[in-house]
Amino acid sequence: MAGNTFGNAFQVTTFGESHGEALGCVIDGCPAGISLDSKDIQKELDRRKPGQSCVTTPRKESDKVEILSGVFEGKTTGSPIALLIRNENQKSGDYFKLKDVFRPSHADFTWLAKFGIRDYRGGGRASGRETVARVAAGAVAQKILDREKVQILAYAESIGEVFAEKFNSGVIEKNPVRCADALAAKEMEKAILAAQRDGDSLGGVIGIIVKNTPAGLGEPVFRKADALLAQALMSIGAVKGVEFGDGFALAEMRGSEANDVFISNGKKITKKTNLSGGILGGITDGDEIIIRCAVKPTASISKLQETVDIRGKAKKISITGRHDACIIPRVIPVAEAMVRITLADLLLQSRCNRV
Amino acid sequence: MAGNTFGNAFQVTTFGESHGEALGCVIDGCPAGISLDSKDIQKELDRRKPGQSCVTTPRKESDKVEILSGVFEGKTTGSPIALLIRNENQKSGDYFKLKDVFRPSHADFTWLAKFGIRDYRGGGRASGRETVARVAAGAVAQKILDREKVQILAYAESIGEVFAEKFNSGVIEKNPVRCADALAAKEMEKAILAAQRDGDSLGGVIGIIVKNTPAGLGEPVFRKADALLAQALMSIGAVKGVEFGDGFALAEMRGSEANDVFISNGKKITKKTNLSGGILGGITDGDEIIIRCAVKPTASISKLQETVDIRGKAKKISITGRHDACIIPRVIPVAEAMVRITLADLLLQSRCNRV
Amino acid sequence: MAGNTFGNAFQVTTFGESHGEALGCVIDGCPAGISLDSKDIQKELDRRKPGQSCVTTPRKESDKVEILSGVFEGKTTGSPIALLIRNENQKSGDYFKLKDVFRPSHADFTWLAKFGIRDYRGGGRASGRETVARVAAGAVAQKILDREKVQILAYAESIGEVFAEKFNSGVIEKNPVRCADALAAKEMEKAILAAQRDGDSLGGVIGIIVKNTPAGLGEPVFRKADALLAQALMSIGAVKGVEFGDGFALAEMRGSEANDVFISNGKKITKKTNLSGGILGGITDGDEIIIRCAVKPTASISKLQETVDIRGKAKKISITGRHDACIIPRVIPVAEAMVRITLADLLLQSRCNRV
Amino acid sequence: MAGNTFGNAFQVTTFGESHGEALGCVIDGCPAGISLDSKDIQKELDRRKPGQSCVTTPRKESDKVEILSGVFEGKTTGSPIALLIRNENQKSGDYFKLKDVFRPSHADFTWLAKFGIRDYRGGGRASGRETVARVAAGAVAQKILDREKVQILAYAESIGEVFAEKFNSGVIEKNPVRCADALAAKEMEKAILAAQRDGDSLGGVIGIIVKNTPAGLGEPVFRKADALLAQALMSIGAVKGVEFGDGFALAEMRGSEANDVFISNGKKITKKTNLSGGILGGITDGDEIIIRCAVKPTASISKLQETVDIRGKAKKISITGRHDACIIPRVIPVAEAMVRITLADLLLQSRCNRV
Repeated sequence: MAGNTFGNAFQVTTFGESHGEALGCVIDGCPAGISLDSKDIQKELDRRKPGQSCVTTPRKESDKVEILSGVFEGKTTGSPIALLIRNENQKSGDYFKLKDVFRPSHADFTWLAKFGIRDYRGGGRASGRETVARVAAGAVAQKILDREKVQILAYAESIGEVFAEKFNSGVIEKNPVRCADALAAKEMEKAILAAQRDGDSLGGVIGIIVKNTPAGLGEPVFRKADALLAQALMSIGAVKGVEFGDGFALAEMRGSEANDVFISNGKKITKKTNLSGGILGGITDGDEIIIRCAVKPTASISKLQETVDIRGKAKKISITGRHDACIIPRVIPVAEAMVRITLADLLLQSRCNRV
Repeated sequence: MAGNTFGNAFQVTTFGESHGEALGCVIDGCPAGISLDSKDIQKELDRRKPGQSCVTTPRKESDKVEILSGVFEGKTTGSPIALLIRNENQKSGDYFKLKDVFRPSHADFTWLAKFGIRDYRGGGRASGRETVARVAAGAVAQKILDREKVQILAYAESIGEVFAEKFNSGVIEKNPVRCADALAAKEMEKAILAAQRDGDSLGGVIGIIVKNTPAGLGEPVFRKADALLAQALMSIGAVKGVEFGDGFALAEMRGSEANDVFISNGKKITKKTNLSGGILGGITDGDEIIIRCAVKPTASISKLQETVDIRGKAKKISITGRHDACIIPRVIPVAEAMVRITLADLLLQSRCNRV
Repeated sequence: MAGNTFGNAFQVTTFGESHGEALGCVIDGCPAGISLDSKDIQKELDRRKPGQSCVTTPRKESDKVEILSGVFEGKTTGSPIALLIRNENQKSGDYFKLKDVFRPSHADFTWLAKFGIRDYRGGGRASGRETVARVAAGAVAQKILDREKVQILAYAESIGEVFAEKFNSGVIEKNPVRCADALAAKEMEKAILAAQRDGDSLGGVIGIIVKNTPAGLGEPVFRKADALLAQALMSIGAVKGVEFGDGFALAEMRGSEANDVFISNGKKITKKTNLSGGILGGITDGDEIIIRCAVKPTASISKLQETVDIRGKAKKISITGRHDACIIPRVIPVAEAMVRITLADLLLQSRCNRV
Repeated sequence: MAGNTFGNAFQVTTFGESHGEALGCVIDGCPAGISLDSKDIQKELDRRKPGQSCVTTPRKESDKVEILSGVFEGKTTGSPIALLIRNENQKSGDYFKLKDVFRPSHADFTWLAKFGIRDYRGGGRASGRETVARVAAGAVAQKILDREKVQILAYAESIGEVFAEKFNSGVIEKNPVRCADALAAKEMEKAILAAQRDGDSLGGVIGIIVKNTPAGLGEPVFRKADALLAQALMSIGAVKGVEFGDGFALAEMRGSEANDVFISNGKKITKKTNLSGGILGGITDGDEIIIRCAVKPTASISKLQETVDIRGKAKKISITGRHDACIIPRVIPVAEAMVRITLADLLLQSRCNRV
């Protein structure tokens, strides 16, 4: 019932707040016998880490992960894997002056409405910092996916009004915005810095491609692959929309245009096109899974904003502190992690589909 | 782990195939003491029923619901509520000729890949007919929501390339396409009939508005209100995209444009705008919840299509039989039902949020 | 969260009341490709059916099961299997006079305290009649266990003060009390009839033996095989105690007496003794699982009893109607069913234990 | 599906091995607004800690708990509460020589059969050390129960062949065996020391009494209060039997003896007797909950035992190291913790029972 657990066969429970002692997760259901080293996890945490480039927050966090349990002599044992990441650079003071004010488009108001109490330090559990635990769990999920050669690739498709026009997967990790179009990447970087100078922020669209997914993943009718992936991605703070394949564009087509025709090379049945994005009837068809996520612009801006405090009194605020003017580059590893966790879960569960 | 249960505090398990004996659901966790009559449910089933207008399939199903348990002397008892709807008009013969052929953009291929066996009669469990059980469960969920005056309204925002330009909730149930713009509704109807004449089909976009939601629903971090609603809606067969508030459009804005400013009238804190669609940090803020769903065009078309059979042999098929050339009008009550079930679940769960 | 679902990989949700329209269950997670016929289920329902002998209630119920979904051309499809059993012989009138009275050691008082409303007809959902759905689900679970040749055998170990002294599995189904000792069975029958004549009732102890369980079932630490079996069996209305292997007797032994020594025949590792009852550390060891359940005497007796009504007013009642003076013979198939469901669930789940 | 999570509304996930880095748990679903200090938890951990008296293992562990998340300014926030206890005194070397040998009545054989890999250091996750996380979670659960004044009291009813004859709750924490009979406590202590001298061990029976439970807890039919409590207690390593009220003794009574008569003092309805142990139809009746658990003697004994190694070769072993000759005194706080967690879960869930 509680909200901090995701997945069933591969079950991840996360904990931790922006300015608390530590963040982490417990992974239950990871099969025994998988090689796992903290380096496998650290590598992914480092991709999400703040302070990597001019476009990310200067908050300094080493984000060192410690494996507390579930691994023995370098292999998973079937026991729960607990991962711990200590907070180091908590400047709670920054937030004290905002403790009674509702920051626009932040969760301050709703969390107080719900729980009657609120950890105001950096947004508490509502902070994007929470996602560090997801990335750690995703790295473990990938170890299961590796055995099937499943590969997840996320990248900036657009940032603000700058759109990628090419797709070269090789350049994604080579530019600070994680765009697959090197030229567009330059423009995106400029757009972010311009917004930052104005005390403002940008959003964008993240594209996700999954390669080598086996056909047959997804549990109809409520745990369809696309339904769970949508939950997984929409659970990331700033994501406001998700679509699969041609998504919203399909709504304007006729069936004869939107349908993907099956073909065969004599050995394998595939599809001529992939407008449905690799999922049919909620089950993967073996083709690439194609997803797009809309990310809203960072809510924290230094530009002066009107709002009210907890007594309803009008206030004007400028949110200073360490914020990314555009979080797309750092949401990308988080989106990948959520796709990994979801697919590892469905992959394990599919072992029970047939007698 | 299995896929046919949705919700936790208000838990719905559905069953049944297009051409099997019956469809239905078991609702567990409905509080005791709610007045419930089969008429409350029948009313919603009748809205989803085929054969209501020129734009829907002529399959004749009375879709009469029977309450099998959980209600005593007109009130819920806290015991599971089982609802049964018998199939009447199964013409399995129609499907026999397609039993070895993979219909394009249908689930035939993926279900066979997954389970190694497939009920080919009308798509079996992968048929849209499955949703009758969701609508029945949604009607029960609404009884819980009624106590908070929560109202869910879904309608056709676009069909194919015809877009609604006005919003008059009063006309929605008065035109066959369930559009809130009477003029656009006429055009939509024409577009559907034109596609039908061509042996083709249309999709569209469904808009959903939820009024009077209390602030505080949604369980961070994985069971956020928007994450669960996305799962709920994406689990409907033809839905390929979901967005909240201004959704994908937010990706192109700056923070200063996208942020909703809080205001107060001295009594209540509200927002000046609602670009975030009534959900902040995954928790409802008391404002209207605004959702849009992309629905792909009906995959079953009579126009000739290429495909292959289970042996990979090329085939040409024309899918005749009883299909909606546009399912938007009938998906609308299903979308409402899924929103109802999700919110009833979160409403009950929120009773545990505070000491 | 709700209480009417059991199991995870093999998930059973039951519904129905003693005097409602029908009882039944939905089984989700049953693998595709298993041969299933309603006769497989009917056979088990007939073993539980009332009116089979002089020692059971004369309530007449044909308990005919109908498979509503999940089976196509004689095989399971991976879709939920819904099973329906209509009530036929509801004499609600019998209960009307007791509607405001709390029957001693019945659930009348507690259900009213919990839900504020109570279906007084035959105990409603608190009736033993609810277990018919468990037996139906258990028959499906057994089809999964059959593939591993797992066999579950339950029998009357004692009834009142009569104890079985021999164990001959061949006679269990040949006497009305389901005792493995033909002579003791006669005495048990006499004891039940004597109690019945006195307007009184008897309880007893049910023994359960599971043969051919594979080693490795049970999910530490909270879903241990014995923990789940205890939950499964204790969830049967009249069961008040459960023990495994030598159970309570182990508490008085020394470690050197209680420990089971491992031995090997060169091919297979087994144990010299089985005081631990086939489960070590919550995981099956491949040996026979041995369980004993204490069943309290039937609470409904015609002998005059003191009690109070819902206003607290003292009453004297004699519970007439159709009750078993000893329910052991009819609880036996229910206990078997619960063990079947539990082991089928753990068997499927164990497919995810290793990479 | 995984096995390391217990509870639904109040959900506890534990992790950690005997000789790993740390043990701990994540509690999700704890309501916001509860005062919580690490001292509340430490107090209970200290009751379970080794090395407290002559009858417990000399392993030295400070078992200091750290609250990592979910508490802000001394109050729970509704976010997951992560608790961490570092291992300090791991002498893995002790176990190296047993790494290929199956200790009799230990989980070595079954865990290897299940997972194909085994953390042999002190039993890994199968060690009783795992329960430290349960006790920590139980202390948090008690904070919820405190608001209803629910009190849980566990004590040694018998150890080996020594039985308590009096019940004085005041002496329980004043003797090393936690017996409510001061005289019997002395005899129990002697019996343990005698077994220890013989290189042997003892088991016993733990009695549990719950006072002030509100009527109405327990979710029929599978999550009955007694069913969940049985699962909870049976999930503790050494527990081999559980009974409620008069338990197995009820099996030999007649209904007229076993039934508890309802009475009223004009204000409140209670029962004249409590043979059913405070639970009727799986729901608490407001009376004391009475439970008894059979605990087997410690499997680790220094007395020479026969066994086999992983290749099936016969071995003779003497298990030295730091073991309790009788674990009853230290299982008592664990049993209390499991009852606390179960009742806190049911208490929260009961908030959803009525409209």
